[in-house]
Amino acid sequence: MKKFLGKNFLLYSDAARDLYHNYAAKLPIIDYHCHLNPREIAEDRRFSNITELWIGNPKDGGDHYKWRAMRSCGIPEKYITGDASDYEKFRAYATAMPKLAGNPLYHWSHLELRRYFGWEGVLSPETCDEVWELAAEKLAEPEFSARGIIARSNVELICTTDDPADTLEYHDKLAEAYRNGEFKTRVLPAFRPDKAVNCEREGYAAYIERLSAASGVKIDCFDTLCEALSKRMDFFAARGCKVSDHGMDTAVPFALAANKKQLDDTFSAALEGKPLTDEQVAAFKTALYCFLASEYRRRGWVMQIHYGVLRNVNPVFWKSLGPDCGCDVICGRPSTYELAMLLGKIAAESGLPRTIIYSINPADNAAVAALIGAFQQSEDGIPLVYQGSAWWFCDHKQGMREQMITLANLSAIGCFPGMLTDSRSFVSYTRHEYFRRILCDLVGEWVENGELPADLDLAAQLVMDVCYNNIKRILGV
Amino acid sequence: MKKFLGKNFLLYSDAARDLYHNYAAKLPIIDYHCHLNPREIAEDRRFSNITELWIGNPKDGGDHYKWRAMRSCGIPEKYITGDASDYEKFRAYATAMPKLAGNPLYHWSHLELRRYFGWEGVLSPETCDEVWELAAEKLAEPEFSARGIIARSNVELICTTDDPADTLEYHDKLAEAYRNGEFKTRVLPAFRPDKAVNCEREGYAAYIERLSAASGVKIDCFDTLCEALSKRMDFFAARGCKVSDHGMDTAVPFALAANKKQLDDTFSAALEGKPLTDEQVAAFKTALYCFLASEYRRRGWVMQIHYGVLRNVNPVFWKSLGPDCGCDVICGRPSTYELAMLLGKIAAESGLPRTIIYSINPADNAAVAALIGAFQQSEDGIPLVYQGSAWWFCDHKQGMREQMITLANLSAIGCFPGMLTDSRSFVSYTRHEYFRRILCDLVGEWVENGELPADLDLAAQLVMDVCYNNIKRILGV
Amino acid sequence: MKKFLGKNFLLYSDAARDLYHNYAAKLPIIDYHCHLNPREIAEDRRFSNITELWIGNPKDGGDHYKWRAMRSCGIPEKYITGDASDYEKFRAYATAMPKLAGNPLYHWSHLELRRYFGWEGVLSPETCDEVWELAAEKLAEPEFSARGIIARSNVELICTTDDPADTLEYHDKLAEAYRNGEFKTRVLPAFRPDKAVNCEREGYAAYIERLSAASGVKIDCFDTLCEALSKRMDFFAARGCKVSDHGMDTAVPFALAANKKQLDDTFSAALEGKPLTDEQVAAFKTALYCFLASEYRRRGWVMQIHYGVLRNVNPVFWKSLGPDCGCDVICGRPSTYELAMLLGKIAAESGLPRTIIYSINPADNAAVAALIGAFQQSEDGIPLVYQGSAWWFCDHKQGMREQMITLANLSAIGCFPGMLTDSRSFVSYTRHEYFRRILCDLVGEWVENGELPADLDLAAQLVMDVCYNNIKRILGV
Repeated sequence: MKKFLGKNFLLYSDAARDLYHNYAAKLPIIDYHCHLNPREIAEDRRFSNITELWIGNPKDGGDHYKWRAMRSCGIPEKYITGDASDYEKFRAYATAMPKLAGNPLYHWSHLELRRYFGWEGVLSPETCDEVWELAAEKLAEPEFSARGIIARSNVELICTTDDPADTLEYHDKLAEAYRNGEFKTRVLPAFRPDKAVNCEREGYAAYIERLSAASGVKIDCFDTLCEALSKRMDFFAARGCKVSDHGMDTAVPFALAANKKQLDDTFSAALEGKPLTDEQVAAFKTALYCFLASEYRRRGWVMQIHYGVLRNVNPVFWKSLGPDCGCDVICGRPSTYELAMLLGKIAAESGLPRTIIYSINPADNAAVAALIGAFQQSEDGIPLVYQGSAWWFCDHKQGMREQMITLANLSAIGCFPGMLTDSRSFVSYTRHEYFRRILCDLVGEWVENGELPADLDLAAQLVMDVCYNNIKRILGV
Repeated sequence: MKKFLGKNFLLYSDAARDLYHNYAAKLPIIDYHCHLNPREIAEDRRFSNITELWIGNPKDGGDHYKWRAMRSCGIPEKYITGDASDYEKFRAYATAMPKLAGNPLYHWSHLELRRYFGWEGVLSPETCDEVWELAAEKLAEPEFSARGIIARSNVELICTTDDPADTLEYHDKLAEAYRNGEFKTRVLPAFRPDKAVNCEREGYAAYIERLSAASGVKIDCFDTLCEALSKRMDFFAARGCKVSDHGMDTAVPFALAANKKQLDDTFSAALEGKPLTDEQVAAFKTALYCFLASEYRRRGWVMQIHYGVLRNVNPVFWKSLGPDCGCDVICGRPSTYELAMLLGKIAAESGLPRTIIYSINPADNAAVAALIGAFQQSEDGIPLVYQGSAWWFCDHKQGMREQMITLANLSAIGCFPGMLTDSRSFVSYTRHEYFRRILCDLVGEWVENGELPADLDLAAQLVMDVCYNNIKRILGV
Repeated sequence: MKKFLGKNFLLYSDAARDLYHNYAAKLPIIDYHCHLNPREIAEDRRFSNITELWIGNPKDGGDHYKWRAMRSCGIPEKYITGDASDYEKFRAYATAMPKLAGNPLYHWSHLELRRYFGWEGVLSPETCDEVWELAAEKLAEPEFSARGIIARSNVELICTTDDPADTLEYHDKLAEAYRNGEFKTRVLPAFRPDKAVNCEREGYAAYIERLSAASGVKIDCFDTLCEALSKRMDFFAARGCKVSDHGMDTAVPFALAANKKQLDDTFSAALEGKPLTDEQVAAFKTALYCFLASEYRRRGWVMQIHYGVLRNVNPVFWKSLGPDCGCDVICGRPSTYELAMLLGKIAAESGLPRTIIYSINPADNAAVAALIGAFQQSEDGIPLVYQGSAWWFCDHKQGMREQMITLANLSAIGCFPGMLTDSRSFVSYTRHEYFRRILCDLVGEWVENGELPADLDLAAQLVMDVCYNNIKRILGV
C-alpha cells in the first residue's frame, strides 16, 4: 500500500515521477479563468475559521461543490447553508468526508490541509476538532490572508471573471500593488458579457441601464449595445484584459441570421420584457456573439465558451438560496451542431479569435476535440481553437485523464492550454498540482510503455508546454 | 495466468481481496428490484432441465439476455425461442459461448455453474452434454426448487415488480411462509403503475377497467384514477410494499402543466382510443407522476425511475414473439433536461420521495450523477435522491465500474444503494457477487494507490454500506 | 522503460504476446472498406517523395488526418495544402510531430517508417532531412510502387469505394492483373450510392443524368431511379462487388412512409432544384434505402452504414479547398432512434441484408452495440447485423479498445468483422497491425486475469476469427 497522498501520489511510473518532480512541479501557475473576488484580493481578506475559507455561504460566496457533496451525504440544509454555527458546519463536512471517497473533494480537501496547513491526517469526525483548531491558529497568522495564500502558491497570473459594467476599481488597486512590488501576482480582469447577451432573462432592461451608465453610451438599439460593449472592452483592455468568457447555458444558439431591423425589434421587446420567440433569441445572440468575436479578434483577446449547463433546476433551492447554490446540472442536450454553425458564421464573417471551448458534459469530449480541428487557421504558429481543460463536473482524475487522452487522439496535446481552477476559493491552487500529476502520469505512462520514445526530452517539453508555456503564448503575456 | 474465475476473480490488489473476502462476501443480499414471478416462488417452482432454468421461452418467461446473445452469434431462431428441443437449445447456447468472451453472460453463466452446481469447467460444445446431465441431476434434488435456490443464495429480501391491479395473492402466501418460518427470505411486492401512466398505448381502456375492478373505484376522470391508484397503494402498503418503479421509455415527458379539465379530456380521449397529441400525453403523465410521487413521499416509499429504453424496435419479432423478447435498445435521446424539469415540478409541489434514477444509456452516467445532487434535501440524515446501479445494457464489469467512478466523482459513493439483479432468473444472485468484487476492487485500488488512507476501516465501512447497510436504511426495512 | 514501438508494442501480457505473434500477425489482410483510388492501383502509381505518399493535397487526394493535425499545431495553411514545396511541407509535419504525442498519427507514422522504410528513429525537425532522403531513395526502388507496397503488406482483398455511375474500368484492369497472376491482391469495387440518395444536395440533377447515361435507363421517376440503380448493381456484381456503403451524414432520416406519387413529386422537385421539406427528404431517402437494402439482401451483399458526420463546417476552407479537407466533425445529434426505425422498416419490408453499422461518435458505442442485437435473425449461422470497427475520429488505441469492450459486453465479440483501414493511403496497412495488437492485448488480458479460461485455444480462435475468418465468411469470399 502506498502512503495516502504521498510524494508520488497519482504518479505510477518512474517516468511520471521524473516528469512531475523535475519539471511540472517547479513551474509557476497561470490561473487564466477563476471566480475569485477581486475585492477580496485587493482588500486582502482574512478568514476567521476554516468554514469561512472552505464552505462559506450563498450570500458572501462559498464553495457549492462542498454544499452539493454535503447534501448528497444526507446532511440537513441547516448545517450547509443554514443557521448552524461555523463549527457545526465544519463538523458536518468532516462527517460527510468518509462517504466522499473517490470524490475530488476528498483529494482537494486533504491536499489543501497538507499544502496550506501542513496537516497530514485524515479528516473525519474524529479529527474534526484538531483540524478546526489548527486552521484557526494558522488563519490567524499574517501570511494566511487572501494575498498571503496566493503568494505561497507560486501564482504568476490570475484572470478573474468580470461584468462589462463593473468599475474594475479593485483591479486598479491590484495593478498598483503589482507595480509597487507589494503583491507579486498579476491579477487581470476578464470580460464576461453574459448579462448583455441573455436578452430573454428577467432583469435585462435593468442591466442594460447599468451598462449604459458604465459606458456612457445611450443604448437604444443593437448597434448602440455593441458600441457600449466595445467601449467597455477598451476600458478592460486598458486594464490588461486578455480574455473573455461566455456561459452558453442549456443550449448553444443555432446560428440564425437576422437583419438590423429584426435585431432592433428583438432588443426593444427584450427591454420591454415582452416574450421573445426562440428564433428571436437565437438570432440576437448569434449576432451579438459574432460582433463580440470580431472585437476579440481585433484586440488579440481569447474567447472562452463554456456550454451545456442547465442551471437552477431545483425550484425549492432557487427560491430560498438563489443561483450558484449547487443546483446546476449537465443539460445533456448535444450542441455540437449548433456550436459548429456558430463558429462557422464567425469564421466566415470576421475570422475567429483564439477560442477555448469547454463542455460540461464528458460525453461531448470527442465532439469538441473534433470540432476544434475544423477551425484551426493559424498565421503565427499558434493554434487558433482549443478544447479547454476538464470543467466543473469533469474536473477530477478520470475527467482530466479522459479529456487529455481524447484531445491527444483527436488533436494535438502538445498545444493544450492546460489547467485553470475556475474556483471561488483561495486554496484551490492544489488543483493545479492535481492536474500536473495526472498529466505527468499519462505522459510518463506513454514513455514507459514504448508509446513515446524512451528519452524524456520530448515528454518533458510537452509537460512544460501544457503546464505553463502554451497558455502564456496564447494569452500573449 | 490466473485461474479462470478463481477465488480472487476481479480482485487485483491485496486490499481488494481483503475487502471482498472479509467484508463484502459475508453480507446477505437485499435484491430490491427484480422481475421474479411471485407465483413461481410461492409454488416453489421446479426445473426439469437447465434450459428451463436458463433460457426459457417468451410464453412462460425466460432470459432475453441469452436470446439476444444467441441471435448475435448467428443461431437460428428455432434454437432460441422456436420449436427445437430443450436439449438442442442448450447445445446452441453452449455453441455460442466461446464467441461471448468478454460478455457478462460468459461470467454469469460460469459463476452460476460453479456456485449452484459446483461445476468448474468451461462451457462449450465439448462440455455441453456433461453440463446438461449434471444440471438435470442437480435440479432433481429437493433443494433445487425456486425457494431452495433462493435459500442457498443468502437473500434476506426480494422486491418483485407488480401491477397495481394485481391481487398479490402469491405475495400473501409468501408472507405467510415467511411468518411461519417455512421460507427465510422476505418477498415484498413493488408498485409498478406503468400501464396506468401510458395513456397513449393500445389497451389502455381495458387496463383501466381492470384497475377499476381491483380498486373498487369507478374510474371516470383523472381524480378517480388517482383515487384508485391510492387505494391500490394502501393495498400494497398493507403487504409491506416499500418501493415503486417506473419505466419511462423512449423519453421522459417534459413537465407540462395542465388543469383538471385538460387532464380529464385527455383521459377520456385515451379511454376512447382517440389519438393524443404529444403535449396531452406529456401533461397527463406529468400530472400523474406528480400525484404518485407525492403519495410515495407520504408513505415513505422509494420511487425508482428507469428511463431511456426504446422497446420492440424489430417489427418482425414483435409480431411473432411480442414484448420482452430481446428487441429493446438504448433510445439514445438525451432526457436529462426533461427529467430535471419533472423532478423540479415534484420538488416544488410536494417534495420528492426518496428517488433512485437509472438510465439505460452509459453516456448519461455523468448527467444523472450531476442531476441527483441538485435535488438532495434531507431532514433525517438519509440522502433523498440516488443514481441506481448500472442497469441492463450497462450491467457488466465496465458498466458497473464506470457508474461507480462517476458516482464517486460527482456525488457520494458512500451513500450508493448498490446492486439489484433486475433479473427474471432464480440463479442470478451471482450478479451480486460480481458487483461486490468489482466494488471491492475499485475501493481496494484506491487504498493501494494512496488515494484513500492506508488503513481498511474507512474502506470496509464504505463497502459494507454499499453492499447492504445503505439500501436497508433507504427502504426502512 | 520499454523500447519505443518495440516488438511487443501495446502487448502487455504473455498471453497477449503469444496471441499476437503466433496467431494474429501471420494472417493476411482483408481491407473491406477503403478509399484507395483504383486507378492508382491499376496504373501502379509511383511517389517521388514522402510528401506525395503521406500528405498529398486536396486536388489529387491526400491525408486529411495529417492536414488537421498540422493545423492543430498552428502550422500555417501554406505548409499544409498551400504552395510551399513538398520538402517544406514534410518539414512542417516533422515539426508538428512532437506535439502529436498520444495521437494515432504518432504511432501510424512511425510504424510506417519502420515497416516500409526500415527506419527506427524518431521523426522530428532534427531527423526530418534524414527521413526525407531515405524515403526518396526507397520510393525510387521498383518495389515501392502502389502495387509493390500493397504486395509487401500481405493484403488478400481490397474493397474500394465506387459511385454507381463509375465505369469501373480500372477494376476491370485489376481483375485481369489478378487473373494473370500479375498482382496477387484481389481488388473489388464497392457500391456507394450517396449521390443518388442525397436528393437535397446541389448538383443532384446533373448526377442523375450521369447515372442515367451509365445505366442506359431514362430516369424520370422514383421507379426508374431504382431501375437504374439495380442495373448498376448488376454491373457491379458482375465485377465481384460484395459490399455497399452509405454515408448518412448529420442525421439518419427518420423512417417516414410515402406513396409512389409523393416520391415522384419529391424526385421531380429535386431534379428541378426546388427546395424540399425535411419530411420529403426523409421519406424519399427512407424509400430508397429500403429499396437498396432489399436489393443487397437479394444479392447477398453487405450493407455498410456510416453515420453521424457533420461535414464541411468551416465555410472558409469549404470555399478554398472544397470537401474532404479536414473540416468534418462529429455531429453529436443522437440518431439511434431514427436508425432503429429505419432498420425496422427494412426488416418488415424485405428483411435486412447483412449490415455493418459505424457511428462517428464514440458516445454512441453502447447504443449501436445494443441496436444490432435487436435485428439479428440468421438462417445460416452467420449473424445478420454488426457494429463496425472504431471509425475515423475513433480509430485509435482507446477508441478501438472501447468499441471492442462495448461490443463484447453487449453483443458477441467472437463474431466481430474486425478492422478496415478506411484510408486513402497505400501505407496505412500498419493500422491492421495496430488493431491486431490492441485486440490481442485485450483478449490476452482477459486470459491473464482469469476472465477467460487459462488455455489459449478459445482466445486464439477468437483472435483469428476477428482478424480474418469472420469477414471472409460475412463477405462470402
